[in-house]
Amino acid sequence: MDSRKILLMIFDGLGDRPLNELGHKTPLEATPKPNLDWFASNGVNGLVDPIAPGVVAGSDTSHLALFGYDPKEVYTGRGPFEAAGVGIELEPGDIAFRGNFASADEDHRLTDRRAGRIREGTEDLAKALDGLKLGRIKTIVRAGTDHRIAVVLRGRGLSPEVTDTDPHEAGETILESEARKPEAKATAKAVNAFTKQAYKVLKDHPVNRARVAKGEPPANTVVLRGAGVYPELVPITERLHLKAVGIAGVALIRGMFRTVGMDVLEVPGATGGLDTDMTAKADAALGALRKYDLVVLHVKAPDLCGHDGNASEKIRVIERLDAMMGGIKARLPGEIVIAITADHSTPVALKEHSGDPVPLTIFGEGVRVDDVLNFDERSMAHGALGRICGQDVMNLLLNASNRAEKYGA
Amino acid sequence: MDSRKILLMIFDGLGDRPLNELGHKTPLEATPKPNLDWFASNGVNGLVDPIAPGVVAGSDTSHLALFGYDPKEVYTGRGPFEAAGVGIELEPGDIAFRGNFASADEDHRLTDRRAGRIREGTEDLAKALDGLKLGRIKTIVRAGTDHRIAVVLRGRGLSPEVTDTDPHEAGETILESEARKPEAKATAKAVNAFTKQAYKVLKDHPVNRARVAKGEPPANTVVLRGAGVYPELVPITERLHLKAVGIAGVALIRGMFRTVGMDVLEVPGATGGLDTDMTAKADAALGALRKYDLVVLHVKAPDLCGHDGNASEKIRVIERLDAMMGGIKARLPGEIVIAITADHSTPVALKEHSGDPVPLTIFGEGVRVDDVLNFDERSMAHGALGRICGQDVMNLLLNASNRAEKYGA
Repeated sequence: MDSRKILLMIFDGLGDRPLNELGHKTPLEATPKPNLDWFASNGVNGLVDPIAPGVVAGSDTSHLALFGYDPKEVYTGRGPFEAAGVGIELEPGDIAFRGNFASADEDHRLTDRRAGRIREGTEDLAKALDGLKLGRIKTIVRAGTDHRIAVVLRGRGLSPEVTDTDPHEAGETILESEARKPEAKATAKAVNAFTKQAYKVLKDHPVNRARVAKGEPPANTVVLRGAGVYPELVPITERLHLKAVGIAGVALIRGMFRTVGMDVLEVPGATGGLDTDMTAKADAALGALRKYDLVVLHVKAPDLCGHDGNASEKIRVIERLDAMMGGIKARLPGEIVIAITADHSTPVALKEHSGDPVPLTIFGEGVRVDDVLNFDERSMAHGALGRICGQDVMNLLLNASNRAEKYGA
Repeated sequence: MDSRKILLMIFDGLGDRPLNELGHKTPLEATPKPNLDWFASNGVNGLVDPIAPGVVAGSDTSHLALFGYDPKEVYTGRGPFEAAGVGIELEPGDIAFRGNFASADEDHRLTDRRAGRIREGTEDLAKALDGLKLGRIKTIVRAGTDHRIAVVLRGRGLSPEVTDTDPHEAGETILESEARKPEAKATAKAVNAFTKQAYKVLKDHPVNRARVAKGEPPANTVVLRGAGVYPELVPITERLHLKAVGIAGVALIRGMFRTVGMDVLEVPGATGGLDTDMTAKADAALGALRKYDLVVLHVKAPDLCGHDGNASEKIRVIERLDAMMGGIKARLPGEIVIAITADHSTPVALKEHSGDPVPLTIFGEGVRVDDVLNFDERSMAHGALGRICGQDVMNLLLNASNRAEKYGA
């Protein structure tokens, strides 16, 4: 039997918990979603613990697991994936941070942790910081979405074992980075030098003068977090013999794709926000299946509703996801395996990630079918996949697509 | 409570996927099998991933797991189990191969990879090769079923890190064995010397002269694959304190039994083929329970139907397996635990092993009972055992038979 193409849909933060306002149902349980239910009814289903039962996964660690890597082996911090996501070509030994443009007074006390959620001019500001020398260490700086920024330190003998400078609260002073291990002292020193130099460079930058003139908070400082060393992963092309491409609006996920050796497809209208064009993404995914073995389509929207604590918005997003799946169902290529899952739960009531498992449907001609009829948390508990771990998912997809290699004889 | 005897039934390749020709049911789901269903209804059930979810198991790695060993620790290749299966007493350091008698021309090009599926005279041919010296390395050669052969290299400093000589296709030239690691160079050289010497010894052997005279392809060469080093396993008698015996028609599985320290029971009529005498095997198994703590009964037939892509034959085999279980049910010894499972799935549509999980029923007086009514893939998904790994099975059997040792106090 021939091998199949694989379409993996990852709906960020889709899993949830029961809400009183929804009659003690989760958003998935409360939303009519005929197309998602059709895939569940005609596929095999289960609940996935992205890392392990009860463990709260980040989007980064979860994606690593879903792509078949052991996060405990390869994950050091989120910085490198953000940096890869904004297009920085990382090298072994690089230490990467993610961070924010922020507003601070002369004493480095934060007045706005996101510089008024600055949207314009951040590329100019990043350019002003890019290439800054901190002794023998070189910095690489790129603007991300809105106020977000990626900062990479490049040089000899750097360590990711340094603490964040981001105090996470307005009114607090920017933190001094500290070495968690002795070998990280030089790195912490460089980080603190960066904080000071960045302020000097940014405070009188034309972009900020214009902002102050308009009464907007200046993006006159940078706070950093998530230090990580560039993970040298065996690319998915080699490990699983899959030519793979990913579609995502957000930089972190694009960085995940690049880091595991996947191509990244640019889709106009894919924003990583609630305004993302899901139809355009689905069209692009179906098109990419002609050229690639594995296409991953990531949608950030449900996670945003979870973080906002907005149940009705999460329901609207689920309706839109269902419509997108309806479009895929209507144009279903023959020799294909489709998997629908999430990277983690972001319960509306919690406004944060939780360690609750997420639904998984695997659908395709010849794939076993179980008795599950609905794509939701409660129904999935009866699926034939049982309760599995994120790291199992890629093996299950290789098997369903007749691409798995035999272990033994 | 007293400990029980254990009867473990392993139906090779029994698991399957839904087939359109069976109304989107698997062969197990499509076959009336009142006795298998009776055991499922009166036992506890689940789905077993022989190695891990989605991972495609060989019969060798799967049996190791079912017997409680970690294949990742002890498995190096299939050769040693084949060699043990045909009665070669392996020693630590031995490198064992499985292979075929084949037909080749003078340039070592294969004209028939199975020498016309030769059945007679193979023992004489193997004897002619047995004891061949390759420098300081000694060879041990035994004929297996039909065209199959086991070859062992014995000597100092040998390594299993050598490639196969079997090109797997008629018309191709026999491959030169190559060293995968520097320390395997001498072994690869010995393998290539064996290929040449075997041809010299075999080409004018009386058995082959007679074959050529009758117009049959001569068994004038040997192709080798699956190099492995003899695994030094702690025998099951010591690890689990079980006096154990196995019944199987095929050499590989007999070799698995011997390697893990089980006795092998010879049952007339147990062929490893579709013509195997299941009643005789069941009789022998029930008899052996008087003397042994654990009796393993292996039936190869369902796997053969899967590899042949023959759904109706697989259904007939399932009917015969059910009749065999009916015979066991009719003469059920009192103090017994019976487990019914498979080593892996061999879907008819795939004609190969797949990574789909296999059914498991554990039955016995006092063993918990769940709501599963049918012994098939879909029903097992609702079993109380859930979805477990092959390596869990022996612990579950030790527990069900009141033989498990306490971990802790």
